[in-house]
Amino acid sequence: MKIGFIGSGNVGQTLGHVLVEQGHDVKLGARQPAKLTNWKKSLENSGLASVGTYQEAAEHGELVINATPGVASLEVLQLIGQKSLAGKILIDVALPLEFTNGELRLSIAPNDSLGEQIQQAFPETKVVKTLNTVTSALMINPLNLAEGQHDTFIGGNDTEAKNKVSEYLRQWFGWKNIIDLGDISSARATEGLLLLTSRIYGALGHSNFNLKVIR
Amino acid sequence: MKIGFIGSGNVGQTLGHVLVEQGHDVKLGARQPAKLTNWKKSLENSGLASVGTYQEAAEHGELVINATPGVASLEVLQLIGQKSLAGKILIDVALPLEFTNGELRLSIAPNDSLGEQIQQAFPETKVVKTLNTVTSALMINPLNLAEGQHDTFIGGNDTEAKNKVSEYLRQWFGWKNIIDLGDISSARATEGLLLLTSRIYGALGHSNFNLKVIR
Repeated sequence: MKIGFIGSGNVGQTLGHVLVEQGHDVKLGARQPAKLTNWKKSLENSGLASVGTYQEAAEHGELVINATPGVASLEVLQLIGQKSLAGKILIDVALPLEFTNGELRLSIAPNDSLGEQIQQAFPETKVVKTLNTVTSALMINPLNLAEGQHDTFIGGNDTEAKNKVSEYLRQWFGWKNIIDLGDISSARATEGLLLLTSRIYGALGHSNFNLKVIR
Repeated sequence: MKIGFIGSGNVGQTLGHVLVEQGHDVKLGARQPAKLTNWKKSLENSGLASVGTYQEAAEHGELVINATPGVASLEVLQLIGQKSLAGKILIDVALPLEFTNGELRLSIAPNDSLGEQIQQAFPETKVVKTLNTVTSALMINPLNLAEGQHDTFIGGNDTEAKNKVSEYLRQWFGWKNIIDLGDISSARATEGLLLLTSRIYGALGHSNFNLKVIR
């Protein structure tokens, strides 16, 4: 599948790498694509890894993944514009966090969310919020923790899009438990979870953890 | 132990009942104590259950538990005043939630919390935020779900107070896993979790669930 990443930081590079290895045709979109030489080189034998502008990555993808820092996401997506994203599924893994005086804060919460703002700004795009509650290492390798017996969440307004993305998460990364929280406003819940996971990180001293809903 | 409840709704009555059964001298404080006749009657053989004003309950308790609706907590506590709560541990299980147009909202979030506001208003009281992420049924009976293999969180500025309250949770209710999230500002994380748990409730269709940190 042709997949375009908006954003080329840790999350974009990590997910992009795995997806190339699985045979997908991946373009990482960046503000300065020239800085991604190392990423591209490490995958050059595949012939499936390319880099480009945000716009080029969006146009490349049948499926597009927003992996920009959440505080910049809307601005970047609006530069790309409606047309390149219309009719497509946009998987949004971004978190609208910022540090103020050394303190972690959510820039959009609790009664709104980045997922909703993107969906509202791009009504012809099917925004699916998922994976945004775990580290990139866990995103691509949930089986590395407790044999995958923990949960990720998914939210979005389009049920078919959520079903497709859930299937991708199973096939690509091996996610076993994907809990559908409803429409895109559930992004308030999953983005807000950062307040808890950052505290748990502080309590445990490492980030190799995830939540499981015991029922 | 003499325990005073500020608030006499479902949470206060449920926890109060169990604590009387365990031999504690419990006073439920309410705006209209006369309405608690049934609760008091159901426990009258014990000789340990009483009702009174908020003020009387606060003065009664060596340990005080805030079980008021979160949107009213500060107002009620300020009516009681500093003196009756000074030097005491105040376990805060309240949630600052409100419904606006049928939509659940957090009235204090994400960069502040009820726990912090109470601690700030009552500097001589040791505020400990805990149990506020589960239903009252689970608060008092964690063993009823997966043999207690799930987590509650605790936060507060006074380590000794947190240790005491953790011991109470183990002794009174059988909590096995209590994760210390740090100072009282961690109440942002646990109060905010309501956004997620309300969504999970919607997805599962029942409230007999809790989170476990898989690590």
